[in-house]
Amino acid sequence: MRSQPASMRDVAHRAGVSLSTVSRVLRGAPGVAPEVRRRVQHAADELSYVVSRNASGLVTGRTGRVAVIVPFLQPWFFGVALSGISDALREADLDMLVYQVGETRAREGWTRALPLRRNTDAVITVSMDLSEEECQRLDDVGVPMVLVGQCAPGRASVYIDDRAGTAGATQHLLNLGHTRIAYIGSRREEWSSGSSRHRLEGYEAGMAAAGLTPWSVSKATGRTGGELAMGELLSDRDPPTAVLAEFDGLAMGAHRILRRSGVRVPESISLMGFDNHDAAAVLDLTTVDQAPYDIGLTAGRLTVGVLDGTARSDSHVEMPTQIILRQSTASPRGSRGLSS
Amino acid sequence: MRSQPASMRDVAHRAGVSLSTVSRVLRGAPGVAPEVRRRVQHAADELSYVVSRNASGLVTGRTGRVAVIVPFLQPWFFGVALSGISDALREADLDMLVYQVGETRAREGWTRALPLRRNTDAVITVSMDLSEEECQRLDDVGVPMVLVGQCAPGRASVYIDDRAGTAGATQHLLNLGHTRIAYIGSRREEWSSGSSRHRLEGYEAGMAAAGLTPWSVSKATGRTGGELAMGELLSDRDPPTAVLAEFDGLAMGAHRILRRSGVRVPESISLMGFDNHDAAAVLDLTTVDQAPYDIGLTAGRLTVGVLDGTARSDSHVEMPTQIILRQSTASPRGSRGLSS
Repeated sequence: MRSQPASMRDVAHRAGVSLSTVSRVLRGAPGVAPEVRRRVQHAADELSYVVSRNASGLVTGRTGRVAVIVPFLQPWFFGVALSGISDALREADLDMLVYQVGETRAREGWTRALPLRRNTDAVITVSMDLSEEECQRLDDVGVPMVLVGQCAPGRASVYIDDRAGTAGATQHLLNLGHTRIAYIGSRREEWSSGSSRHRLEGYEAGMAAAGLTPWSVSKATGRTGGELAMGELLSDRDPPTAVLAEFDGLAMGAHRILRRSGVRVPESISLMGFDNHDAAAVLDLTTVDQAPYDIGLTAGRLTVGVLDGTARSDSHVEMPTQIILRQSTASPRGSRGLSS
Repeated sequence: MRSQPASMRDVAHRAGVSLSTVSRVLRGAPGVAPEVRRRVQHAADELSYVVSRNASGLVTGRTGRVAVIVPFLQPWFFGVALSGISDALREADLDMLVYQVGETRAREGWTRALPLRRNTDAVITVSMDLSEEECQRLDDVGVPMVLVGQCAPGRASVYIDDRAGTAGATQHLLNLGHTRIAYIGSRREEWSSGSSRHRLEGYEAGMAAAGLTPWSVSKATGRTGGELAMGELLSDRDPPTAVLAEFDGLAMGAHRILRRSGVRVPESISLMGFDNHDAAAVLDLTTVDQAPYDIGLTAGRLTVGVLDGTARSDSHVEMPTQIILRQSTASPRGSRGLSS
């Protein structure tokens, strides 16, 4: 069933033009009559001829590929962000290489382990929280770099304002009449996250502006972290009437503990997350949407812009967040225990 | 900050060997003394020299890349499967290109729009439900192909036994004492899914074996489909005591409707999904785990095996499924209405 792939020579022969004309047409170079261009494209279509990126790369110096570096591929956020990046690169006829660095991230010199050099025209990092040293090592790859989920001075960055997101969420809970608002943060051993820090700061600022003392608990990350933190809050002498979680995964763990303890949401405790995770709607969880698809699309288009010279390589794009009201937040019912 | 990338010539100079020796070492070719090999590798490390896939590809005929084709990147399943594929390819020092074909899938000749030829050593398709004609068009790319989530005769395939999965789930509900067991299937306009068909067949076979009449409802796909189907089932003169959904997304929609209608799970209706979606644990949903990470890892390793000649290009690997018992299924309480 497999046939020898058509060569550029085959296309030239069928179209009745020279090899260099085929090359010019397929590279999109100027100086070819429209009629000839159509004939070449038609012949290429008929022969299912696809330009070899390798061969064309040796001519243009471009690889036609962009590398996307993610810490993990499993969490919901990354699939959605990649979807946006993929669509943006597709618009520009660029291929997407994906590197999941996971545990290698912990290793000194992990950036060197990536075969990026000369294999890619640009690098997009997603939620990598790169140190300046790591940025510089990626600079050594010698291609443009766009950071997603991180705002680095002088570097192309696409990110949300995490502080404003949690400050807004805190204000929403204050507006409902809550004053005992606790915050569940994540705790990671591996590396510190800027986004994590900023979200806590936004909550603290929101509480301070209302003259209230912040109350944050951090046990672990993921759903387990939410379960542990909620357990501690429910064991307090005077439990909170509202809980804001750093991200939806933590809120889901907290929600599970509340359900199992028979504490009603939102009647006894209001619960709010951050991310608008796929499963937040399932739980009717009020949350802060950060639209990862739009973030990915924007980052992909910015990358294309930097490559073709229409965008600056130090552009900063701050993406909006949006509070999504669902059933998990409501006004507190006076000052009463959990069982009212 | 950016320096000129080191060339193979730089490596040769630092190691004090000829260019062709460097080339042999970096390609892993035989005939180089271990001591020389170490010296070249040390020099390459010091210079952060990374082999250009393009240049080495022109020598070996290999690109060092595998293309993964997915219909969508956003649904949870694909991120997890990609994570497994990525880890397997990484073990073999292969890069992963990802193509999200989405809507282009509907277009005639979508396979031709992929710049696969000569840009990739192999193609992995995930949940693409390829027709034989589409398979043949991908054959034209002229590289090995591995199908994930689809069992095609004569072609390397990694898949679960969907029929056995739903038959087992149905048996679980029968064992609990249910007899009025309804099935919620998906309905798609775009293309028919083999997995979808097989899951329905497994349920029907399980019911038939128990001498019961199958009862299936298909409205749409996703959570909306689950909501609509559950609405119909709750409006029946004699609602089911147990519901099995084709996948967790449908079960989540059904769960939402049950919650909003005040129908208790599992007291009044047992609910069971399929997939072990990220959010299934959050809802305490009993489900059938299909371990997409393992599926991806297996498919990636099979691809590597086909490329290096240690696996047959028509290997079929059937992955096991596993019922995950949670709180959403229980024995029915006699024959009574929904409100008991």
